[in-house]
Amino acid sequence: MGGDYAPGVVIEGVAAALCDFPDYEIVLVGHSGKLRFYLEKYGLSGHSRLTVVHADEVVEMSELSSTALRGKRHSSITECARLLKDRKVDAMVSAGHTGAAVAATKVLVRTLPGVDRPALATSMPAQHGRFVLVDVGANTDCSEANLMQFALMGEVYARYLFKIENPRIGLISVGGEDVKGNELTKNTFPLMDRRLPNFVGNVEADAIFERAADVLVCDGFTGNVFLKGSEGLARATMFWLKSVFTKNAWRMIHAKMVKSAFRELKAFGDAEDIGGAPLLGINGICIIGHGSSSPRAVRNAIRVAGECVEFGLNEQIVARINETGSTTAELEKVLNTAEHA
Amino acid sequence: MGGDYAPGVVIEGVAAALCDFPDYEIVLVGHSGKLRFYLEKYGLSGHSRLTVVHADEVVEMSELSSTALRGKRHSSITECARLLKDRKVDAMVSAGHTGAAVAATKVLVRTLPGVDRPALATSMPAQHGRFVLVDVGANTDCSEANLMQFALMGEVYARYLFKIENPRIGLISVGGEDVKGNELTKNTFPLMDRRLPNFVGNVEADAIFERAADVLVCDGFTGNVFLKGSEGLARATMFWLKSVFTKNAWRMIHAKMVKSAFRELKAFGDAEDIGGAPLLGINGICIIGHGSSSPRAVRNAIRVAGECVEFGLNEQIVARINETGSTTAELEKVLNTAEHA
Repeated sequence: MGGDYAPGVVIEGVAAALCDFPDYEIVLVGHSGKLRFYLEKYGLSGHSRLTVVHADEVVEMSELSSTALRGKRHSSITECARLLKDRKVDAMVSAGHTGAAVAATKVLVRTLPGVDRPALATSMPAQHGRFVLVDVGANTDCSEANLMQFALMGEVYARYLFKIENPRIGLISVGGEDVKGNELTKNTFPLMDRRLPNFVGNVEADAIFERAADVLVCDGFTGNVFLKGSEGLARATMFWLKSVFTKNAWRMIHAKMVKSAFRELKAFGDAEDIGGAPLLGINGICIIGHGSSSPRAVRNAIRVAGECVEFGLNEQIVARINETGSTTAELEKVLNTAEHA
Repeated sequence: MGGDYAPGVVIEGVAAALCDFPDYEIVLVGHSGKLRFYLEKYGLSGHSRLTVVHADEVVEMSELSSTALRGKRHSSITECARLLKDRKVDAMVSAGHTGAAVAATKVLVRTLPGVDRPALATSMPAQHGRFVLVDVGANTDCSEANLMQFALMGEVYARYLFKIENPRIGLISVGGEDVKGNELTKNTFPLMDRRLPNFVGNVEADAIFERAADVLVCDGFTGNVFLKGSEGLARATMFWLKSVFTKNAWRMIHAKMVKSAFRELKAFGDAEDIGGAPLLGINGICIIGHGSSSPRAVRNAIRVAGECVEFGLNEQIVARINETGSTTAELEKVLNTAEHA
């Protein structure tokens, strides 16, 4: 029910997913009355691999996630999280209220053993290839242990996404030198340095788009500002491009001649193929799509959800947390000892 | 002596400034032996409005500012700050090590009465016009009182830069709603809301380039990541543009025909006219140029330094701090009361 064009585009995406992934079974959670029209429109009524679970309410994009969860105990996102918690589904996908999805899964599904907090990971385009950024907004205030765990979870996600065994991990900071940073990153640096063989150290923000690392780690406030700021600058650049190329008839003619070039340029920022951002660290796969997801993005978010299950994303996260001695309890012990030393 | 192309470009910029601003007197601080060649090259030897103050050492870009200041007590940046402290100059300009300039002025010149910490302000291009961003890196960890004072100092700077009486001030956050943010911004919000008639509230990062506010306030870690990230994305976009427009001969021909359009696009990010970022809150005007400043940027940084003196930037900052009850002592009292309430 969530997202800017729900439930129409979501159901169109589900139709594509049912067609493209013959071994996926899909459960649609939402207001059954409102879903019916679209299910018929896309020929899905009575589909053998599609179930509808009714939910009376929806968390609106304008609502506060905390109050929405308390006030709407049977919203579509809460029902969805309940299905995941009860292991009736292997994964969930939402294109709705990100905060509500984070809060609902945190409260109902809970985090993986040893993991303190879930983190939202996204991938963004670099000059060549892409990079993973984590956390982009699930946690506005983070501890050193949180950042350390984000790095490990991002590493496992990058293994899946980029099909590489040892992704390089960087810590976003105000300079590339080891000693640069704020209190949080300066205290996190030694934790990562000791536990991650592929830790490249601090990465200054202007090197991120040169793919200084495959996985970039930061607190959710900084990550959100970086992600949203980049989206805003990309839009402004398109605006400036348009304004300089429509300045006179001569330029407009040439711009028209190479329209395909502009289309390709736009594609660099396109996340449709990626489908959605995983909420890492939740005890069940949870993929969060953009509020303005297209049917293709929804279809791909469903693909990613299934692939993460098959890849064993969460099993690998738990293994990495354990083999590096990075459970919350272990990290807190290390941090307390360091403080007392 | 600082900057990537010092002292050549700096002296070329000084030559232009001496020519364009006949009422400016300029003091060059640096290694007199190394300066001589360039002074002769640009015909400045014995210029009536130019003095050279010798400094043996330079803080290299790779050095830590704290150790550099302790180890090099007579570096060019320290001597420069000393001249400002002793009121032998009205303003200083540096294109060198930003951290060293911040540290040297903080220690030697100190902050304005009532101001806790200086902040680095820069201006960036929006879709239409520009906006001021403060702090972009002078303080990696900030308090609520710091952000409040950054807002007031940024307001005065925007008055000078944009020639507007009442700049709109926004607080960078993870959402536009009043309740969104991290602990720091959530606690800062009411301070700004009560003291700033032109406070527009929280601004999500993607609205910044739409000029949701004229002055955007954040801690120096976030601001530095935002600024550097934007620089990196702009470079990546130019790279992508080049790669799509040089893909085949047909596109290359059309791109060549409208080369002027690309030049204009590049100009949106150009800070040459701005000249430099003021270090606000220091008890003396201090303008920090980009390490890769061109002679024109150096000339403009000198222009800005003079204009800030004439504008009475620091007098206006002190007045705003006082008339809004925002001295460090006053803000701390308010914050303590709120905590105990």
